[in-house]
Amino acid sequence: MSEATRVKNTGLRGVTVADSAISFIDGEKGVLIYRGYRIEDLADRSSFMETVYLLLFGILPTGEHLEAFTRQVKDLRRVPGYVIDSMRHWPKSARPMDVLQACVPLLSMAEEHGDTMDRQVCLNRSIALVAQMPTLVAAWHRIRNDQPVLDPDPDLDHAGNFLWMLQGKKTDPATAKDLDVCLILHADHTFNASTFAAREVVSTRASLYAGVAAGLGALSGSLHGGANAKVMEMLLKLENEPDIEGWVSARLAGGERIMGMGHAIYKTGDPRAVYLKRMGQRLGAQTGGKWADISRKIEETALAIFAGLGKSTILPNVDFNSAPVYYLMGIPTDLMTPIFAISRVAGWCAHIIEEQFADVQGKPALYRPQAQYVGEYCGLMGCEYSPMSTRK
Amino acid sequence: MSEATRVKNTGLRGVTVADSAISFIDGEKGVLIYRGYRIEDLADRSSFMETVYLLLFGILPTGEHLEAFTRQVKDLRRVPGYVIDSMRHWPKSARPMDVLQACVPLLSMAEEHGDTMDRQVCLNRSIALVAQMPTLVAAWHRIRNDQPVLDPDPDLDHAGNFLWMLQGKKTDPATAKDLDVCLILHADHTFNASTFAAREVVSTRASLYAGVAAGLGALSGSLHGGANAKVMEMLLKLENEPDIEGWVSARLAGGERIMGMGHAIYKTGDPRAVYLKRMGQRLGAQTGGKWADISRKIEETALAIFAGLGKSTILPNVDFNSAPVYYLMGIPTDLMTPIFAISRVAGWCAHIIEEQFADVQGKPALYRPQAQYVGEYCGLMGCEYSPMSTRK
Repeated sequence: MSEATRVKNTGLRGVTVADSAISFIDGEKGVLIYRGYRIEDLADRSSFMETVYLLLFGILPTGEHLEAFTRQVKDLRRVPGYVIDSMRHWPKSARPMDVLQACVPLLSMAEEHGDTMDRQVCLNRSIALVAQMPTLVAAWHRIRNDQPVLDPDPDLDHAGNFLWMLQGKKTDPATAKDLDVCLILHADHTFNASTFAAREVVSTRASLYAGVAAGLGALSGSLHGGANAKVMEMLLKLENEPDIEGWVSARLAGGERIMGMGHAIYKTGDPRAVYLKRMGQRLGAQTGGKWADISRKIEETALAIFAGLGKSTILPNVDFNSAPVYYLMGIPTDLMTPIFAISRVAGWCAHIIEEQFADVQGKPALYRPQAQYVGEYCGLMGCEYSPMSTRK
Repeated sequence: MSEATRVKNTGLRGVTVADSAISFIDGEKGVLIYRGYRIEDLADRSSFMETVYLLLFGILPTGEHLEAFTRQVKDLRRVPGYVIDSMRHWPKSARPMDVLQACVPLLSMAEEHGDTMDRQVCLNRSIALVAQMPTLVAAWHRIRNDQPVLDPDPDLDHAGNFLWMLQGKKTDPATAKDLDVCLILHADHTFNASTFAAREVVSTRASLYAGVAAGLGALSGSLHGGANAKVMEMLLKLENEPDIEGWVSARLAGGERIMGMGHAIYKTGDPRAVYLKRMGQRLGAQTGGKWADISRKIEETALAIFAGLGKSTILPNVDFNSAPVYYLMGIPTDLMTPIFAISRVAGWCAHIIEEQFADVQGKPALYRPQAQYVGEYCGLMGCEYSPMSTRK
């Protein structure tokens, strides 16, 4: 079997395409590391702002640097007026991920030299995008519900301010902290599909904004960031189902997948899922525990069936456990993927800057793979172009 | 050297990632084929509408099918009013490629079930996007120049109608035909960076729109579709340069590239460039021949230097020769890449549909490559998270 055959139609699984110093996954051990630090340490002891700093600058900040960085992000939360003015024209039924994909190029329009290759400018734009993503999600949600768009509150941290702009009430600090931890857990994940899309796009020297917009596009897919919303749809459908075990068995017997089960990389458990499961159980206990209960039944049934099939590497992933957490925070189902984006934009920007300024033997490695042509050819010179009158 | 090393940092050059029946390039022979037909035959004897039909449906249409298809495209040229209303809020300085990237998600908002996996719906949306792309480019150009947005004219063909909506005057048929040929020549090109980005994004089951938007993002880069504008900027800079040979020599001696020279795949000449060079010479002769003259001097000087360096595979590419053609048609420099998009959207859509509905052992091949982690690690458990007070 030739090497081309081996790579073909595998989605590049297992193919190492570049060096990266941003994150690392050990799929066998269930380890995820950002810039050297384990995700559990960051979730327990750090904050999303510190994690963004770490991803973008490669080191943990001093207290002074973190304070200045946090102030910079807070100062950049507002989006230009024309973005909000435009939103007011859009169909109220617009999917929030489409809204974000439209808004990122809109933000680009305010910038001179959009495709600059100045590293400092790209870092500043990254910080602005991290600051603005929650504002975009909240503004759209308010507009579609005919509610006034709210100003960001500089007294609130990133997660708390988002919940304020979204819900119009100050959230209790514990919930804001939980959301902050969720943002830490989703911020980066090596060359996942959206990050690879972002890097691929900027490998042509397209702008940081073009890269982030492509990341949003890839994230919207139900096999990627869209999965958390699909998990919640499943949980809501099963809310009054008396026989969850039967539902899971029938679904798997029919060859369908259980949303939120399985991961391309993790084979012994996703460390983010473990963390979020505990959070969901705690939040659930405060509110009756219904979702934790449904999730547990789905998980137990599915894992027993997978074990019987010798597929014990199919385990609950981050989406399986984040969806009920977001739901209990009052997040609408179709904003769950946008929350993923609010977090992952940090990773995309770190990867885009790494891609833009990587010195690979002085030559930009524009991604340009090959396809094996399996269509018509008719020999060396191509098929004969037949006059229209002779076609049938 | 391990296989991972061989693939790493090469931009996947030469790596076969999928089967495709849409187009084929023989880089040694200088052959480009769409669905079995040589680009020269299509440029000489076909039309852009027929080429779009060929790319999307895989066969040349009968007269009846082409007529119905052309009518369908004409009927779909208008864009929803909220798209134009939104544009009126945007900064007049906005780059047209950013405008297109914002508009495609806006078009998605009008559609229910945006991420449908229904093949017929995706085909219909593809046809609409082909129809609407010229409308978006022209509308933005009119709005930024405080001119009224013009309605599409069903009596005009695709290229002629675009020039009408853009310039507000009916173009002579010969110019419309030349532009139509340019659109044929740019419509597809296997797994180039923008097409690969589009396929990568929809491999997550993101929508056709998300795929096209990512294609636009990648195309905007100066190493890809953005190159034609860069070529024109170079030509305009050299308009009154008495010593073009000296300028080229100095630039190459300084390690800089000549825009529009070289291609990742073609090593003996780009068949599109050959075609466009002739067109440029003909158009140039009618208008004094200045650009053809400047282009010729750049080409001759550069090729002589490349030959001396043993780099005789660096040849003028499609962008080198399309830029002066568009200029002579009265196309502003920053609309040259959008014209590329007006054409390539056909190829992106064909590839997206192929990616969405390819049956690869029943399993979606979501693109998810790997990176080699070259950052901090500090051994098995990650680096110790230091308390902030201890950081320096």
